[in-house]
Amino acid sequence: MRQHLVPGELVCAQHFDWTDTAIPEPGDGEILVRTLCLSAGPAQRGYLTVGGKGKSGFLPGVSLGDVMRGRGVGVVERSRHPDFAAGDIFVGMLGWQDYSIQRPRADDFVFSGKKVLDPARPLTTELGIVGNAGVTAWFGLFDVARLRAGETVLISAAAGGVGSVAGQIARIRGATRVVGIAGTADKCRWLTDVLGFDAAINYRGDDVDARLRELFPRGVDIFFDNVGGQILDQGLMHLAPGARVVICGWISTDYSAAQLSGPANYRQLLYKRASMQGFVVFDYWSRYPEAERELKAWYRGGRLQNCEQVLDGLEQMPLALQNLFTGANRGIMNCRVAPDP
Amino acid sequence: MRQHLVPGELVCAQHFDWTDTAIPEPGDGEILVRTLCLSAGPAQRGYLTVGGKGKSGFLPGVSLGDVMRGRGVGVVERSRHPDFAAGDIFVGMLGWQDYSIQRPRADDFVFSGKKVLDPARPLTTELGIVGNAGVTAWFGLFDVARLRAGETVLISAAAGGVGSVAGQIARIRGATRVVGIAGTADKCRWLTDVLGFDAAINYRGDDVDARLRELFPRGVDIFFDNVGGQILDQGLMHLAPGARVVICGWISTDYSAAQLSGPANYRQLLYKRASMQGFVVFDYWSRYPEAERELKAWYRGGRLQNCEQVLDGLEQMPLALQNLFTGANRGIMNCRVAPDP
Repeated sequence: MRQHLVPGELVCAQHFDWTDTAIPEPGDGEILVRTLCLSAGPAQRGYLTVGGKGKSGFLPGVSLGDVMRGRGVGVVERSRHPDFAAGDIFVGMLGWQDYSIQRPRADDFVFSGKKVLDPARPLTTELGIVGNAGVTAWFGLFDVARLRAGETVLISAAAGGVGSVAGQIARIRGATRVVGIAGTADKCRWLTDVLGFDAAINYRGDDVDARLRELFPRGVDIFFDNVGGQILDQGLMHLAPGARVVICGWISTDYSAAQLSGPANYRQLLYKRASMQGFVVFDYWSRYPEAERELKAWYRGGRLQNCEQVLDGLEQMPLALQNLFTGANRGIMNCRVAPDP
Repeated sequence: MRQHLVPGELVCAQHFDWTDTAIPEPGDGEILVRTLCLSAGPAQRGYLTVGGKGKSGFLPGVSLGDVMRGRGVGVVERSRHPDFAAGDIFVGMLGWQDYSIQRPRADDFVFSGKKVLDPARPLTTELGIVGNAGVTAWFGLFDVARLRAGETVLISAAAGGVGSVAGQIARIRGATRVVGIAGTADKCRWLTDVLGFDAAINYRGDDVDARLRELFPRGVDIFFDNVGGQILDQGLMHLAPGARVVICGWISTDYSAAQLSGPANYRQLLYKRASMQGFVVFDYWSRYPEAERELKAWYRGGRLQNCEQVLDGLEQMPLALQNLFTGANRGIMNCRVAPDP
């Protein structure tokens, strides 16, 4: 990483340097992993923030000169760890680089990485639909919000990585109405025509409040919020009694961290006897297999669409990350670093 | 009621007229109740708001010329209802008047009233410590927030009606640290010296943030918030992982409803994997006996202090209500209308 971000600044190529170094040798208990693909996620912006301390609250920032942190899928090239062999597929914090030394630990595979048995194809899906994006949507809907069949679901940033999975799996689990909010008419069409959302609201063109009233005459049972700001406030006005609001992120406000505001309509939590709960998917690491098993079965059975965009080349990672904040992405944002073996 | 309140206006005597009318006769299924005491509660301000529609979200406003709504304890003077006899003690929506006709219904005693068997004494406690204030604190702490022994509790408006009970019963149920926030040094002393709070913070004199850091080194497990505004935001910054924030009201902001803001620090719900939930005690009406039984046993056993202030005379009701918004009250605010029989 070459330079930190200041509040309000858009992440771009100039924040990073690319350097050539020798391929490292694994020590005892370590493996050498070649990166095949990497994913971009909003939390990465936090790692880049001035001061070296992320706003994400659970991982520190990346220091200047260090390799940018990032999740990826790779193949084991050399192993000095008893549980790994050359050719194994590995998912973990590979960083924005072609090769990395990893030291897997069974007691926390989220951060130390793990072997992927029977991986889904292409391997980018292990970073998306059956990986972090999918698992985040799964725990947010089914554990935090406790979705029951017959309920109605509203998803903001629905054309984003987590949102585009959340809408699909809410439908599979029996939600009667799934509505997404997105920022272009194209994205809205994609949500309804490709991903099977019941309806989509274009927050840049539609009267959001009027559309919510029309689409949720009896209110929203689950509001899965990825954006914060005005859309969070608008959604709060349409809660059904006993609604659950899941706080997964606030991508609309991350970007202007200087003037933070809160949801004025939080009073609806009382009027509607509703709850608002935040979560961090990494807390669920010991239960990941439960979610991954179901997501993989749905994906392979054709019930779950692979809603990802893949840029080509490691050098595209800054753009991949930038896309999350300009709204240029549609679905999960990944980069291909080397071909799947 | 003579005139409505406008936003920002303090309720006072001029909003009401006092008129003399004949004592009414009960019809079939009705009882005539003589009011003995009445309670003041923040929700009553909502009934008084311009437009005849309260902000409380669950009861409509009171129309001009109608009797002001209010909860009270009375004695049955004449009965044409099979379950009631003269001399029975009755609690219900008696209104700000000496006599009222009531039509009790067993399927919703919160609004239609009920007979009080084995009432606590003085009867004002049936409106406070073992009545609505107590029951609100009980369900908020034990059902909404699911208090467990060994947890830490922060209560705002702790010297208010609900807060002063909440602190006491959190302690009885095994909270290890109970801290109240109040607006004067006198109230703070009352909380610690009389009601047994572990500590109290004077938000007008103390550095609230520094005190919270000092008093909750490992964070607040339950934040029982009655005030909203800045104190809600300050409390959010000190949550422990897995904390529960109970939204019971927002008396600090009710009063300037024109410029509503929300808790900017709601992002802490994600960082701390915490939840924020609103509730309305009336939803629990079928479970009231459970709470009342326990509160009464604690009160009679001397474990629960009767933290009420009683003004003398029906005509003091406007002042009793006003006190809630000027901070002049300490504990539960009641008026004595006639002596206990």
